[in-house]
Amino acid sequence: MTYSTPSQTAEKRAPSLPDMFIEHRAAIGAELRRSLSGDGSVYDLLRYYMGWVDLDGNPTVGTEGKYLRPTLCLFACDATGGAREQAMPAAAALELIHNFSLIHDDIQDEDETRHHRKTLWAIWGVPKALVAGNVLRTVADTALDDLQSAGVPPHRILLVVNRLTQAYLEMIEGQYLDISFEGRQEVGLNQYLDMIARKTGALIRCSFTIGALIGSPDDRVAAAFLESGKALGFIFQVRDDILGVWGDEASTGKPVGADIRRKKNSFPVVYAMARARGNDKRRLLSIYDKDEPNDADVADALHIMDSVNTRDYAHALAVEHGEAALDALAAVELRKRARTEFEDLIDFLLFREH
Amino acid sequence: MTYSTPSQTAEKRAPSLPDMFIEHRAAIGAELRRSLSGDGSVYDLLRYYMGWVDLDGNPTVGTEGKYLRPTLCLFACDATGGAREQAMPAAAALELIHNFSLIHDDIQDEDETRHHRKTLWAIWGVPKALVAGNVLRTVADTALDDLQSAGVPPHRILLVVNRLTQAYLEMIEGQYLDISFEGRQEVGLNQYLDMIARKTGALIRCSFTIGALIGSPDDRVAAAFLESGKALGFIFQVRDDILGVWGDEASTGKPVGADIRRKKNSFPVVYAMARARGNDKRRLLSIYDKDEPNDADVADALHIMDSVNTRDYAHALAVEHGEAALDALAAVELRKRARTEFEDLIDFLLFREH
Repeated sequence: MTYSTPSQTAEKRAPSLPDMFIEHRAAIGAELRRSLSGDGSVYDLLRYYMGWVDLDGNPTVGTEGKYLRPTLCLFACDATGGAREQAMPAAAALELIHNFSLIHDDIQDEDETRHHRKTLWAIWGVPKALVAGNVLRTVADTALDDLQSAGVPPHRILLVVNRLTQAYLEMIEGQYLDISFEGRQEVGLNQYLDMIARKTGALIRCSFTIGALIGSPDDRVAAAFLESGKALGFIFQVRDDILGVWGDEASTGKPVGADIRRKKNSFPVVYAMARARGNDKRRLLSIYDKDEPNDADVADALHIMDSVNTRDYAHALAVEHGEAALDALAAVELRKRARTEFEDLIDFLLFREH
Repeated sequence: MTYSTPSQTAEKRAPSLPDMFIEHRAAIGAELRRSLSGDGSVYDLLRYYMGWVDLDGNPTVGTEGKYLRPTLCLFACDATGGAREQAMPAAAALELIHNFSLIHDDIQDEDETRHHRKTLWAIWGVPKALVAGNVLRTVADTALDDLQSAGVPPHRILLVVNRLTQAYLEMIEGQYLDISFEGRQEVGLNQYLDMIARKTGALIRCSFTIGALIGSPDDRVAAAFLESGKALGFIFQVRDDILGVWGDEASTGKPVGADIRRKKNSFPVVYAMARARGNDKRRLLSIYDKDEPNDADVADALHIMDSVNTRDYAHALAVEHGEAALDALAAVELRKRARTEFEDLIDFLLFREH
């Protein structure tokens, strides 16, 4: 597997969903549905948000998430010799926490749609959406109670809970940083990378780490998965940022330049701001100073980003992190075929279209 | 100690803060400050909200809370033979969770002040306030990590964490019910009592239960404190509701009838709605049907509440629960003087003016 010559052409492959997602999907879905089977209308809101039912409570098809975080957790547990059932409560908790953060994110950003569906606050108002998010966060905690009956030893559970709590905290601090950056024109590249390492990276690397903590009694294994998970989190977010600017509308549901239009602080703009000079720099600053950039602004911003090879640079950096993710696990003994499955995962994260 | 003849006159005593609050206050404050000593502006917001500093970060005096929940937790631990230090991480977590819920409550209710100070969202906007609340909630979880170094055995920690998680969930479900009641004119008394048992009661009884779980290895002791704590939660909320309608402005910072003016579903109105008949009932319904009740409306509502002895009934019910709180602990062996201190606590909760 070589990622040594990244290019726009190389990006055109559209990878299929790796086997590990297909393997674990049904079991994760069942566990999550069990967690959210409660009575009371707040659970109706949550089942809607998880993409299982429509607004009338009727089952829907094709609106469920891909369950990245729980899949990473189960893969790590399974690859290091553990039983999937033992990691399942933690896997469910990770997905619930992720969705809790999205519900609150929607409120903060006043986003009325996500994944082509109306968001909770846009339908039921801020108070109910806010509380529904908090319920989800707490259901995640109760899911962890099942680790004990799944046979994970108490001291190991405490370690898992501790890691997860640290990841929450980093995630939320990252969200706070992100909000603080809003309206600021020049966010440094390092500042930006630090922010996403927390906001998105914390939960992704935690998914990997926790899986290994449950799968293997050897703490060095969990440490290796932590390192590898850091790289995965980076790839995931940078690919997200690439898609936010250059993603195909048919795949992402957003027009090209969507993140420019909403002046989102993402990798492409942070990088271009740091690299552009003279007129280009001034033009970019003026675009991001506007309340609402128009079509011409978006076209100019895209042109300036191209002129400093933003997309290639971002992709090359993601590819480097793919190598790092593999390297981190090089010395770890994994069950048969796990390494190939992991390569498929990295390939997917690097080239996914949505 | 007799509570057998409750009356308006009996209520006029203004009890001083019980010894247990004074005894634990400094240690709780120190532990909380340690939990929230982090860098970054979100911690500045949180230190402001906790009442330790003003908007410029300068230390303030007299704006700190009374730390009811941690005090209950430490008292229960200490009274049942435990060391205060062991319960301190849980005590801190309880106060942090309580404040997390207040920050989000302020957003939901669009309350611009609390305890005579501007609320977070009113100063820094909804996104930052929302995330700051989430940070506080997560710092509470990290505080629990210290239970291990405080010497609480792992299986006991899991029990404590489990109880706390259940209490969170009940609290948040209660908040959701409360929001669902808004705008509804006839909330049944039982519905209302069920809602407050969750929204306010869950964390209060959990404080008591957790303290006993850490203080005593005997699970029957924790069960007795749970029962007693249920009664305490009831007294606390009903007294809050009494003060919300008849509280003295000098003490509560709110004019008489404040909860009527904001049409808050609280014990007095729920009770009066259930008891009033004929013209009184129609008048009460029409007042709560208005967007903004005026002075005459408030005066009429107070009159109707008086006509069905709302205040006396509420107080008598609280007194009954005071007896129940004591009875629940009757068979439990407590350290010397603990029972007297507990009587002082009940007295305080029944007659406090703010």
